[in-house]
Amino acid sequence: MYLTDEKVAVLGAAGAIGSNLSQTLLASGTASRVAMYDPFAPGLEGAAEEVYHCGFPNADVTWTTEIAEALEGASYVISSGGAPRKEGMTREDLRRDNAEIAKQLGLDIKRYCPNCKFVIIIFNPADITGLTTLVHSGLAPGRVTTLAALDSTRLQTRLAQHFGILQSKVTGCRTYGGHGEQMAVFIGGIEIDGIPLTDILCGQSVNGVGMSADAWADVQEHVRGGGARIIDLRGRSSFQSPAQQSAFMLRGVLGESYAWPCGAYLNAEGLDHIMMAMPATLSEAGVRWSMPEGTEDDLAALRESYDHLVALRDQTIADGILPPLSEWRDCNPNLG
Amino acid sequence: MYLTDEKVAVLGAAGAIGSNLSQTLLASGTASRVAMYDPFAPGLEGAAEEVYHCGFPNADVTWTTEIAEALEGASYVISSGGAPRKEGMTREDLRRDNAEIAKQLGLDIKRYCPNCKFVIIIFNPADITGLTTLVHSGLAPGRVTTLAALDSTRLQTRLAQHFGILQSKVTGCRTYGGHGEQMAVFIGGIEIDGIPLTDILCGQSVNGVGMSADAWADVQEHVRGGGARIIDLRGRSSFQSPAQQSAFMLRGVLGESYAWPCGAYLNAEGLDHIMMAMPATLSEAGVRWSMPEGTEDDLAALRESYDHLVALRDQTIADGILPPLSEWRDCNPNLG
Repeated sequence: MYLTDEKVAVLGAAGAIGSNLSQTLLASGTASRVAMYDPFAPGLEGAAEEVYHCGFPNADVTWTTEIAEALEGASYVISSGGAPRKEGMTREDLRRDNAEIAKQLGLDIKRYCPNCKFVIIIFNPADITGLTTLVHSGLAPGRVTTLAALDSTRLQTRLAQHFGILQSKVTGCRTYGGHGEQMAVFIGGIEIDGIPLTDILCGQSVNGVGMSADAWADVQEHVRGGGARIIDLRGRSSFQSPAQQSAFMLRGVLGESYAWPCGAYLNAEGLDHIMMAMPATLSEAGVRWSMPEGTEDDLAALRESYDHLVALRDQTIADGILPPLSEWRDCNPNLG
Repeated sequence: MYLTDEKVAVLGAAGAIGSNLSQTLLASGTASRVAMYDPFAPGLEGAAEEVYHCGFPNADVTWTTEIAEALEGASYVISSGGAPRKEGMTREDLRRDNAEIAKQLGLDIKRYCPNCKFVIIIFNPADITGLTTLVHSGLAPGRVTTLAALDSTRLQTRLAQHFGILQSKVTGCRTYGGHGEQMAVFIGGIEIDGIPLTDILCGQSVNGVGMSADAWADVQEHVRGGGARIIDLRGRSSFQSPAQQSAFMLRGVLGESYAWPCGAYLNAEGLDHIMMAMPATLSEAGVRWSMPEGTEDDLAALRESYDHLVALRDQTIADGILPPLSEWRDCNPNLG
């Protein structure tokens, strides 16, 4: 009935993402044993009560404001438990604060659940928070990933709207590298109802609809602003899609196929000591990445996105939250 | 992959319940074709975008602010689209406003989807809004139901907490009659890990835990205040559990078993021209109710709850929103 009855710790469970995720793990038959953690007790209890009132059969749902209790015995950890960006806070402030939270999370994982199988980091900037969690957790790099699909599903959504076809008929949508304005939106591999988008940009059409290079540039811009657009429309940042895609990722680890990009720790092919969105497969063995295929422009954008992440990583090192590269192996012997 | 690919209209889809429900129908593999409706366009578009960004395989999700477009061709209608209770509004104000909305919904169903198979009404007071929708829709009584499970799942939750056992080991929790302070919380049929609660009140225990008559009275009170408690804890009324249980109800209609009480139109056994929570089975044929079994106290409470609903119904007739009983058959030939 559920794909696993092993313990899944949901961190940030009083929040919009975490409470939705707790429900979704159960509703989708993914996991029956969910430990909800949040430092905010009343909201956490309220969210847990809502899950109880759902009446999921054979569910074993607990809640706690103690991180040790949440993590002990957890096979899977999914954290949306970052600080939200508050008014007046810069993107840099957010990075530093959330990297600190990620560091503590890594240390907590090392202490309380060093044998956990898989960790999914959702809170932004996920490339940095995921990397920071990994370094301090001591886990093997394949055991820590970040949610990286939403830019790609936003790209798929936008193209489906442009061509007026079902979303599932738009395939191969992939953004790689960092999440944020420096993401690399790949065109290579995208097909609209079976027709390569590169051919459509050269004059082909689908259902009588074509796409100009300018329109494609607009689509890329739209995807880059996808998160901000949700805030404009709903008055709050996206929470349903991050929760749902995290559940899909866990299902991927539990044996289903997962086709979207995942955050992966890279230390090869000139991409070193970084975590970013890459083509990946999920399995019980964790996340396994590969180099993406794309046009020359695509790969140049990926390199640019990588360089941007390197700068963020180096700043996090300068802040003292990540150790210098030469000391990563001391923190985490699994890192080369 | 989904239990149905027929159209499900979700009304109030920009709201917390409706947006969660849209996601849950897809996440749980219940329905692939979801038409999201709400009069509030930006919030609706934002909620729809979130569902798109979930990337559900083979989903066909649309959104519209036109009720005709939402309802045309719908096989199933689930509405959380009432007005919320605003500051300074009495419970009576809410009943009248939402009964007006329910009347319009009934008329819209009659006009745009008279052949729909099943309607689930969530907005409060659901006993009255469900009844009003039914009368004006012209549908057969078995085709319209209300969400009535949450009081029962709250009862199950509270008993599980008292005895310190898994929720699923508490069985037979049922509240009947109206939703609200006049609900009838049945003790007959409840078992704690296989032991009748009535026996426990007479001195038996489970895991060394017993229950006094006073403690049982406290549990009943707790259940009656279950909705208000969520508001205290979360700062908002419950939305996850209503959405999830509505999805479970639709699954019941689509062939799964559904074991919780449902709102049913009654016109027999001295319970006339009313909709209230009863023991019920769901199937493609709709909702089929039966008389509950319980202690003498249980049945007296049910009668009291019925009398309370009759008063609310009569007030809704006096308001001119429901016709006089003698004219119901003119509105809806399916009503005896």
